[in-house]
Amino acid sequence: MAEGSDDIQALIGQFARLPGLGPRSARRVVLSLIRRRTGQMAQLAALMASVAEHSRECARCGNIGESELCAICADPARANGELCVVEDVADLWALERGRAYRGRYHVLGGTLSALDEIGPDELGIPQLLARVGDEGITEVILALNATVEGQTTAHYLAEALENTGIRVTRLAQGVPIGGELDYLDDGTISAALRARRQL
Amino acid sequence: MAEGSDDIQALIGQFARLPGLGPRSARRVVLSLIRRRTGQMAQLAALMASVAEHSRECARCGNIGESELCAICADPARANGELCVVEDVADLWALERGRAYRGRYHVLGGTLSALDEIGPDELGIPQLLARVGDEGITEVILALNATVEGQTTAHYLAEALENTGIRVTRLAQGVPIGGELDYLDDGTISAALRARRQL
Repeated sequence: MAEGSDDIQALIGQFARLPGLGPRSARRVVLSLIRRRTGQMAQLAALMASVAEHSRECARCGNIGESELCAICADPARANGELCVVEDVADLWALERGRAYRGRYHVLGGTLSALDEIGPDELGIPQLLARVGDEGITEVILALNATVEGQTTAHYLAEALENTGIRVTRLAQGVPIGGELDYLDDGTISAALRARRQL
Repeated sequence: MAEGSDDIQALIGQFARLPGLGPRSARRVVLSLIRRRTGQMAQLAALMASVAEHSRECARCGNIGESELCAICADPARANGELCVVEDVADLWALERGRAYRGRYHVLGGTLSALDEIGPDELGIPQLLARVGDEGITEVILALNATVEGQTTAHYLAEALENTGIRVTRLAQGVPIGGELDYLDDGTISAALRARRQL
């Protein structure tokens, strides 16, 4: 037993399984926590237990919150007829940090994938289509990742919404703000050129 | 509030303060934990609370364990007359993983630093010198980092132990196992050349 006690070793093992951490960074994190064991570490443990107990998925959109409906679905000001479809909660958080979008969301929880046997039912696409009718949605924004899987899923959704009279849009593709052309991949440059706008 | 709930945001903030993590990786870790909230996350919170409550510094050597004396100090087989001095617990763990050293340790908890007002008393060097007499130590191995501060501290300790008749050694410096000369810094190559050994 190299590291202190069985519990400390188990804790390092648990941290090493988190995304972006490995055995070395897990040891560093655990040692730094143990140095602050009466302050930060006890707080973090209590907070983590509380979040584990209270957090749940929103029954309507799949966002994470602490009640049956998340703060966004519970806010009537956000029922503005726009519905933004994202792959996962991290994407929803990223859009919320941008503070540019004031409508509601729908979290798919993944993308269509024949290989992994993830079809429309697994992603809850029937529920999404039902929401579009129930909530008087006028525009569906497909904010899916610019990957093959994301774009396949976007295509599928665009077709499913084709004859409903609802406006279906996707995020613009182009040069990121602050981006340097020299560092961009060829695909992004071609897309930005094709979608060029008059000044 | 972009991220779910106040508790989730606080949890992300706490994770972002850990060494090697930032806001982005903290969000990723917290989302991955929330997805496993009934399994891994609850376990991790309980384990962390337990380690925060039970872990303590060994009264003799400064290692981290769960009793007054750590497992190494409590093991009579490790009283072999050797005492290995390290800067912090992470270094002790690294040496223990190597499984090559069978004596006891002394954790300084830092290095001498005039700028930060860390002198011999702050590092507990008087206690270290007392241990050398009390425990019948015959060799002190200075396993301090090969930094300026580490080597200054090693020099200080070597002088303090000069007239006690105790053997004072330091770790060998040279090419790491598996290391390629082309990637090594000049200082390491010079040191390895100066300390060359006959085959």
